[in-house]
Amino acid sequence: MGVEGETKFVATEQGHSGNGAQEEVSSGENLAVWVCGIDDLKMKPFKLPSTLGNDEVRVRIKAVGICGSDVHYLKHLRCGDFIVKEPMVIGHECAGIVEEIGKDVEHLKVGDRVALEPGIACHRCDLCKEGCYNLCPKMQFFATPPVHGSLAQEVVHPADLCFKLPENVTLEEGAMCEPLSVGVHACRRAGVGPPTKVLILGAGPIGLVTMLSAHAFGSPKVVVADISPERLKVAKELGADATVLVSTDVKDVDKEVTALQEAMGGRIDVTCDCAGVTKTMTTALKATRSGGNICLIGMGHHDMTVPLTPAAAREVNVLGVFRYRNTYPLCLDLISSGRINVKPLITDRFGFSETEAKNAFERSANGGSSIKVMFNL
Amino acid sequence: MGVEGETKFVATEQGHSGNGAQEEVSSGENLAVWVCGIDDLKMKPFKLPSTLGNDEVRVRIKAVGICGSDVHYLKHLRCGDFIVKEPMVIGHECAGIVEEIGKDVEHLKVGDRVALEPGIACHRCDLCKEGCYNLCPKMQFFATPPVHGSLAQEVVHPADLCFKLPENVTLEEGAMCEPLSVGVHACRRAGVGPPTKVLILGAGPIGLVTMLSAHAFGSPKVVVADISPERLKVAKELGADATVLVSTDVKDVDKEVTALQEAMGGRIDVTCDCAGVTKTMTTALKATRSGGNICLIGMGHHDMTVPLTPAAAREVNVLGVFRYRNTYPLCLDLISSGRINVKPLITDRFGFSETEAKNAFERSANGGSSIKVMFNL
Amino acid sequence: MGVEGETKFVATEQGHSGNGAQEEVSSGENLAVWVCGIDDLKMKPFKLPSTLGNDEVRVRIKAVGICGSDVHYLKHLRCGDFIVKEPMVIGHECAGIVEEIGKDVEHLKVGDRVALEPGIACHRCDLCKEGCYNLCPKMQFFATPPVHGSLAQEVVHPADLCFKLPENVTLEEGAMCEPLSVGVHACRRAGVGPPTKVLILGAGPIGLVTMLSAHAFGSPKVVVADISPERLKVAKELGADATVLVSTDVKDVDKEVTALQEAMGGRIDVTCDCAGVTKTMTTALKATRSGGNICLIGMGHHDMTVPLTPAAAREVNVLGVFRYRNTYPLCLDLISSGRINVKPLITDRFGFSETEAKNAFERSANGGSSIKVMFNL
Amino acid sequence: MGVEGETKFVATEQGHSGNGAQEEVSSGENLAVWVCGIDDLKMKPFKLPSTLGNDEVRVRIKAVGICGSDVHYLKHLRCGDFIVKEPMVIGHECAGIVEEIGKDVEHLKVGDRVALEPGIACHRCDLCKEGCYNLCPKMQFFATPPVHGSLAQEVVHPADLCFKLPENVTLEEGAMCEPLSVGVHACRRAGVGPPTKVLILGAGPIGLVTMLSAHAFGSPKVVVADISPERLKVAKELGADATVLVSTDVKDVDKEVTALQEAMGGRIDVTCDCAGVTKTMTTALKATRSGGNICLIGMGHHDMTVPLTPAAAREVNVLGVFRYRNTYPLCLDLISSGRINVKPLITDRFGFSETEAKNAFERSANGGSSIKVMFNL
Repeated sequence: MGVEGETKFVATEQGHSGNGAQEEVSSGENLAVWVCGIDDLKMKPFKLPSTLGNDEVRVRIKAVGICGSDVHYLKHLRCGDFIVKEPMVIGHECAGIVEEIGKDVEHLKVGDRVALEPGIACHRCDLCKEGCYNLCPKMQFFATPPVHGSLAQEVVHPADLCFKLPENVTLEEGAMCEPLSVGVHACRRAGVGPPTKVLILGAGPIGLVTMLSAHAFGSPKVVVADISPERLKVAKELGADATVLVSTDVKDVDKEVTALQEAMGGRIDVTCDCAGVTKTMTTALKATRSGGNICLIGMGHHDMTVPLTPAAAREVNVLGVFRYRNTYPLCLDLISSGRINVKPLITDRFGFSETEAKNAFERSANGGSSIKVMFNL
Repeated sequence: MGVEGETKFVATEQGHSGNGAQEEVSSGENLAVWVCGIDDLKMKPFKLPSTLGNDEVRVRIKAVGICGSDVHYLKHLRCGDFIVKEPMVIGHECAGIVEEIGKDVEHLKVGDRVALEPGIACHRCDLCKEGCYNLCPKMQFFATPPVHGSLAQEVVHPADLCFKLPENVTLEEGAMCEPLSVGVHACRRAGVGPPTKVLILGAGPIGLVTMLSAHAFGSPKVVVADISPERLKVAKELGADATVLVSTDVKDVDKEVTALQEAMGGRIDVTCDCAGVTKTMTTALKATRSGGNICLIGMGHHDMTVPLTPAAAREVNVLGVFRYRNTYPLCLDLISSGRINVKPLITDRFGFSETEAKNAFERSANGGSSIKVMFNL
Repeated sequence: MGVEGETKFVATEQGHSGNGAQEEVSSGENLAVWVCGIDDLKMKPFKLPSTLGNDEVRVRIKAVGICGSDVHYLKHLRCGDFIVKEPMVIGHECAGIVEEIGKDVEHLKVGDRVALEPGIACHRCDLCKEGCYNLCPKMQFFATPPVHGSLAQEVVHPADLCFKLPENVTLEEGAMCEPLSVGVHACRRAGVGPPTKVLILGAGPIGLVTMLSAHAFGSPKVVVADISPERLKVAKELGADATVLVSTDVKDVDKEVTALQEAMGGRIDVTCDCAGVTKTMTTALKATRSGGNICLIGMGHHDMTVPLTPAAAREVNVLGVFRYRNTYPLCLDLISSGRINVKPLITDRFGFSETEAKNAFERSANGGSSIKVMFNL
Repeated sequence: MGVEGETKFVATEQGHSGNGAQEEVSSGENLAVWVCGIDDLKMKPFKLPSTLGNDEVRVRIKAVGICGSDVHYLKHLRCGDFIVKEPMVIGHECAGIVEEIGKDVEHLKVGDRVALEPGIACHRCDLCKEGCYNLCPKMQFFATPPVHGSLAQEVVHPADLCFKLPENVTLEEGAMCEPLSVGVHACRRAGVGPPTKVLILGAGPIGLVTMLSAHAFGSPKVVVADISPERLKVAKELGADATVLVSTDVKDVDKEVTALQEAMGGRIDVTCDCAGVTKTMTTALKATRSGGNICLIGMGHHDMTVPLTPAAAREVNVLGVFRYRNTYPLCLDLISSGRINVKPLITDRFGFSETEAKNAFERSANGGSSIKVMFNL
């Protein structure tokens, strides 16, 4: 199978996980949702390793959210440089209940409800040892080809990536730790704190969790811009201090920058570009104060034509943000303590069947009033 | 006078300094070199304030280097967003001898040889108080319109911006602290240290001082790229660990990135883009390792079409670098201790007359084997 | 006058300000409260400079809080290395109304209500230019000998140190920005954020503002310890997540450390020692997690006998905290937005007369249920 | 066996490694030097695991240096909180030749010469994931009880902790990466760079490697103080810019601080206390400039009576330094490139036998002109 043609998608259930950790077979016990071609979702068995590693746990998945990248894989069989070449189990925002633990696992027991951090880093390379494990070149991340995802009845996962949910945190909230982590990581990278006024470009799920994170990091004012009045309405309801409707026309940037700065009522210290297209980055480069930070989170355009130089002449920094690191305990604490409420982000719920999966992905792809589409297994 | 036409450039000697600090009159004592129109350099009197402020000193200028921005003002009457609207004294890389000191000046005495940091910040705004005075919105900087420069027999300047030269540092070396400061500031911003391998794009004066700075900050390996074999030869002589000849064609980026990484013999931690054009920034974004830093120093293109997103997906950061802050004492110490040798950068010397000035600027504009053109007054 | 004897305290009104900025005379217009000897407070005229500097404002003082250092000067004529050698106007936590502005002042107008940041730095030394102006060796700080304070009807002050109060911030709250700044600065130095659990040792005014700041910086849990059940009750009312009563006996440290860690319910990331005595620092060094930070804020003991080495072997850092820098705009925003409420800290109010001043200082010195004693002028 | 009595030291060769990784038996193949009691060194067999882990390598040890902690264990059966309760193989500064590799090892092959980083962190806890693996609570470190050391013919070690030596780096230099790492880590923690003037208190092996590191990080001036003129002579020969002889009497601190500051010829930005006793820390606290950093590296005294408060009032920070992290590749590069020369530190060499071991430890314990005592196996 490959992006160049779907004809190779015959009725095989033999896929290959990234590093041999998980392989599917024809035996039918553990069902999962597979991307088998463009717009071709199938419910099929997904074989787990026959023996559990000493540091691993087996988790019965109970909640899985759909991410934009999941939809992108289904629609295009690729996302950035990652290409789906073999049928792949989809899904990576998940939580579940521990069914079995490896013999060296100490912090979990059977029955514990856990959120699963989806990326397995090597722990051995320079970047891992320096604490930047999200940049590990050997990263195996749920549903990033050729690694299978977690929209399955059960998965096996390293115990240290399974975080026990506090009693007052639901499994759905546990799954929400994944997108929330992106917002938390961006706020950390940008140094958001009590003096930091934050502009969010894009009011999709990532824009919204970044907004919630900015407030949790103490930001006094978060302004959100989007091209959709509906999304801005949601942003407002979820706590945006102000919202600004913008266009998709680059010619509007200058007047919109003025409007955004007025809405902020002061200098914009940090801008989070959650769209990642030429227009939003142009806006970010012009709107952010001298010495301020821009986080580039969205990945809309590969190349951009942007006024980098005049921004550099004001020492505006463009900080890349890729996924997250060391965020799960904080996310769980933010949710458990009520400092962040992710429940309103969950707008749509589906059950676990092939038909439901197709409908769920369709709902997520259509956007509209949906923010986060969640599976309950 | 303005960029729209030169006809308004009549025989006036009345210019206006930025904040009234310095005004020229027809009395002829203090001669200076003025930009009076496109390619129109004139030697004319430059009147200093009649009374010296308590915290000011009067300095007899002895050495002034020509910067690319000086040439740009002469050729285009503008540089970035700064426009020459009135005749302006040019020059800002300078050193001289203290002739008179204000009554509150303690650290200097008449006869001291000093390097002059050219930018007067307000010391009162948030950015100044936070230590980022180079971003001060009220900055008055030599030869940045409407502020006059220092290619004059005498100037008046705040004492705290005049740094006494160690005995073994020449006045020309004192003037070289200005361009060197840019390299030092870039290395600081990028966190260059003993583990940091540095790629320098552009082997002009700024590229070269950045290379020298990187070594002084402990970098084990500095690779320099340029489109000119001559400049690369100079870079090599001045200590580049390797040099790579590159083209101006964006289509060559991928193969050049490979060549640059091979020349480095390991991952590129920091890239300093001293050209600031689409091609160099594209190279920087592709060549720099995950989690690495790019300093955008050169200001070649206003807008750039660059692959920002895939670089952000590796958390490569683009850090703006504008001038410098808190660098002069360090630069003097680096030169005095021999850790950095700026003398080889001074390739051409001219005296102080209108004819010499014209020749000097012509030499600087032509580039070729010239690196730094210096006036001796 | 000097610490060695009070007999030199004759009926002179001639004092000397630190740098000639302010001198008192016998003319009676501007009354101020002077420390004239041990426990000798007097209401006397305080002469302001006859002409206002271009960057200065004259402020009618309306609210002044009493700080522990003020009391210390009154009781001992010294505080740390600072010695009262001449009669000195006391007071430095203040706010008032602008009465006159210098000709270059742009951001204020007559009638504006302002909080006054009490320290005038030189803006010219390395530390100032690097943004650490609180460490400026030439600092002139209200009521730090030989510089006069601000418990006066009027003072003259640099305009850039006068911060306009938002409409919903009272003059008393403006005065509270001063102690609040210490807590804000400590939280910044220690890197307090959403994941940071904070232990506060000492529930006096500084401990309480540090607690409020920690919450504003996003800390999920702040535990406060003190030797006074009354103070702990106040801490609890003001938002402490838990409180622990401790003794003054060093022998109790180990069991108290256990109690503090239990009260925290997790590792202690940051400890703020707001007492600064051997026992509290011993507690801090033992209680703080590996790699955590201790802020030493209180200045109780000059020398301490403490287990520094075993803490260093866990890479616990001891960070000095001296006053604050760049905090006033943030403090005003924290108060104005309601993120911090300093009003409950103001427990006692006095008018402006010699008798009231004596009573106010007595009240402040006695402690008890008083937290902040405030003058209303 | 325990510190309370040696009688339990019967003729057992059964020890227990920290986590079961390595166990000794009576079979005689792999000889090692064991600490069996106070001043009781024995050469005995040391059994390695029978099967090599997938990510492990077996290394024939060729060079082992003696550290002060090794001597301390031999003389006191303890060091800090670590107590030798069972006979333990000593030694942790080592290099050797790869004899066998696990099946997943990619970056090494049999015959490679490697330096061994001695500490095995868990890679799973918060501190590890944040990049602070040296603080891992589950750390297993060579010759830190109950973990065996590496003064043995062969050891088994994780491959990612074995760093291939560049061709021009000797095995002895490989072993020297261990102490050098401490100096490198201290310089990183303290932010040493081209503007940083560094005071080193203590000219033992750690003081000397810290001095070498400071220069490699760009420090313009490193002053070394010690109580031994001999050691200062060595420091001078190895590159100290100045040396100062000090006493052990705390009463001399003030005059010595003056002498140290004069020797520095400017403010002391960073002080590295490589002794860790009351007097050196007192000196550090008084000598370091406002806003400067002190690294506490030596562990001489458990408790100290020191003037912490006045130093905190100048925002001097005391940074704990424990071992190191992420230093080996840098150390090898510093040595290979000639930026640091550790060879002169190796003053004494011994062969591998029980008698030689006893003599070597005696030599190391006696100090005198010995700096680093090295075994060649």
